[in-house]
Amino acid sequence: MKTFEVSKSNDMLERAKSVIPGGIYGHYGFSVRDTGPKFFSRADAAHFWDLDDNRYIDYMCAYGPMILGYGHPKVEEAANKQLRQGNTVSLASPAMVELAEVLVDMVSAADWALFGKNGGDSTALAVMIARAATGRRKVIKVTDGYHGVAPWMLGNRLGTTETDTQDVLEVAWNNTTELQGLIDQHPGDIAAFISSPYDHPVYRDNTLPAPGYWQQVEALCKKNDIVLIVDDVRAGFRINLAGSNREYGFTPDLICFGKAIANGHPLSALTGCDALRQTAQEVYFTGTQFFNAAPMAAAKATLQELQKIDAANLMTQIGSTLNQGLVNIASTHGYKLIASGIPAMPYYRLDGVSYETHVAWIDECVKRGVYLLGYHNHFISTAHTETDIQLTLEIVDEAFSALGPLSAHAPHEAKL
Amino acid sequence: MKTFEVSKSNDMLERAKSVIPGGIYGHYGFSVRDTGPKFFSRADAAHFWDLDDNRYIDYMCAYGPMILGYGHPKVEEAANKQLRQGNTVSLASPAMVELAEVLVDMVSAADWALFGKNGGDSTALAVMIARAATGRRKVIKVTDGYHGVAPWMLGNRLGTTETDTQDVLEVAWNNTTELQGLIDQHPGDIAAFISSPYDHPVYRDNTLPAPGYWQQVEALCKKNDIVLIVDDVRAGFRINLAGSNREYGFTPDLICFGKAIANGHPLSALTGCDALRQTAQEVYFTGTQFFNAAPMAAAKATLQELQKIDAANLMTQIGSTLNQGLVNIASTHGYKLIASGIPAMPYYRLDGVSYETHVAWIDECVKRGVYLLGYHNHFISTAHTETDIQLTLEIVDEAFSALGPLSAHAPHEAKL
Repeated sequence: MKTFEVSKSNDMLERAKSVIPGGIYGHYGFSVRDTGPKFFSRADAAHFWDLDDNRYIDYMCAYGPMILGYGHPKVEEAANKQLRQGNTVSLASPAMVELAEVLVDMVSAADWALFGKNGGDSTALAVMIARAATGRRKVIKVTDGYHGVAPWMLGNRLGTTETDTQDVLEVAWNNTTELQGLIDQHPGDIAAFISSPYDHPVYRDNTLPAPGYWQQVEALCKKNDIVLIVDDVRAGFRINLAGSNREYGFTPDLICFGKAIANGHPLSALTGCDALRQTAQEVYFTGTQFFNAAPMAAAKATLQELQKIDAANLMTQIGSTLNQGLVNIASTHGYKLIASGIPAMPYYRLDGVSYETHVAWIDECVKRGVYLLGYHNHFISTAHTETDIQLTLEIVDEAFSALGPLSAHAPHEAKL
Repeated sequence: MKTFEVSKSNDMLERAKSVIPGGIYGHYGFSVRDTGPKFFSRADAAHFWDLDDNRYIDYMCAYGPMILGYGHPKVEEAANKQLRQGNTVSLASPAMVELAEVLVDMVSAADWALFGKNGGDSTALAVMIARAATGRRKVIKVTDGYHGVAPWMLGNRLGTTETDTQDVLEVAWNNTTELQGLIDQHPGDIAAFISSPYDHPVYRDNTLPAPGYWQQVEALCKKNDIVLIVDDVRAGFRINLAGSNREYGFTPDLICFGKAIANGHPLSALTGCDALRQTAQEVYFTGTQFFNAAPMAAAKATLQELQKIDAANLMTQIGSTLNQGLVNIASTHGYKLIASGIPAMPYYRLDGVSYETHVAWIDECVKRGVYLLGYHNHFISTAHTETDIQLTLEIVDEAFSALGPLSAHAPHEAKL
């Protein structure tokens, strides 16, 4: 199998650099690798093509939004119909109401919904509602937990100030002793605890909740009148369609959704319980594009299709099959592949080798048409077929051959 | 002329209230009036229809995004083509590069561009770049200047804390003496001055820059190494296609765009000068939906069409004609109508009457098919035809008749 040429991608990147700082920015820029593709030309089902017309089986799914496959006919038909009727108009569309009805019906902890564009719009609103409802200001988050790019949640970066995160406290994942300690240190001053349903940091194995963890968190929040916020922007709809919390047996007060909610049309949502409805109505939350009707129509179609095909369970099966296949192939080459996190969002790491060797393996996969990333969890969609999985395993087999034997790379300590 | 029934809108609002706090939220909720429409069913050119099939000539243009008319064929064709090729994919699209090229070519102060979803994404990034470039933290904004809904820029609301805006200082519009004073009070600690190109608050007449104001601001910023940020999210492309600053003869370091940039497809942009390019590359800025390709393709088509038809000057002419017509009709009914701000974004106020009387007049217009708001500037599009203007004036004439004579309402002091 020939490895891919990416010269047109490289040319476009050079062209981009003259009008865009760095050429490609944000998390997309972070993923640029010398031998990998930089721009897509088209996308369909579980595949995209780069500018050099190489086809990739895509295990990033646009970092989550793609869940039913690119260009899903039912979603695109709903979006197109709404685009023809009107998208961004001086009034809201009934599509907003219909979407809220579907979401509230589907998500067990949701009594109401509000919509924005970015996942960060939802997390910011959730914290404002928690502060308004409690009259408190401090927020506890999990160390390395990502809840959007806003300075108040992602401090210690160029351009942020030390005051941006002064009301944000951090606690280790799966550690209720530390959580109890933080609450005790700040009596009556904790407005909210915000966390993803399981721990999916970058550059590290992902970690599921320990047995009883969420029940203890829920009890601590209830006891101390702390608003419990689940940030389901990334994992939402890939564990349990009724809310990831259902899988782990607890009930949050607020849930943040985004990414996959409209299969790639830009939308985010916050859902909440009845007890916070009045506060949610009083907190001012808006944006020019929040009322775009086409993404709402797309979201309604997406959620209905997800339910119809029992999508979360389907993706769990597909991801489990993929993980098992990859672990087996790694093993035949003498490598130990660790797949962590939920099956529909696997984080991969080659055990006992350096980070450089791990990404060298990733690069060998990408150069042959399996799009993986070396530092981030992946995403499964319902459009990944058995044929895709089979071809993936063949390509990964070749990638391991190209990487060469473990003895040439190990022993190194994994860097990260 | 019969006034409109809005019972289907009212029914939908009741239905909405059970799944959305307040039914309609944010600035859209703020605009709900008893006798007015609440939801749209379709939109075309300068018109939208409500659920009861009443047609409105729309002078809000979705609060700015609609600039070429709803459903503009060239924009929708570009968006649809990109939607078919792929919208939200694991890589960026060449559409991003092409859009950046068009924007940088068109906006005179722009050497580069970055893209987000909300206008607030751009203003937040602008301030982060300013802080990173200067190593300072304080930001000066104009009192009542709106730069997005984030707590750091819109404090003193339910859900915000006093620390959210602790690094934001306020100065009166058109007051360089006060600006100089603020800079002197915080020597070496001002990172940025952020302002719209003219003052367009709600509930008040809008105010253009005084002669020499922007030149003095520019000189003060240069002298004190303060990054000058123009928030052109609202006025952008309606004063001068090369940037609103061109109309007022000054050059900012950073310009925030949003709203009209893609004629209703969700996109925002920050453009900047070469001196800040490296810093812009180093500040981490991202979002799940920032790389949606369809809004970028729509934006490219929008900007090209705006240039082709000399849109800013066209809208200035249309707005001037409308303003003159409305002032004349008001006068024939014994009222003095004040139209402030730029002609393409007129703010209307009936002089010498209470706020209640002013909005009673607005309600009479809306009930007959001219969609105006009582507290916010309006927006003109290139799709507003002479026929639209003529019909508007006829309807407004009837609205004044329905309102009755000034003597029945005045004298009151204007409340706001």
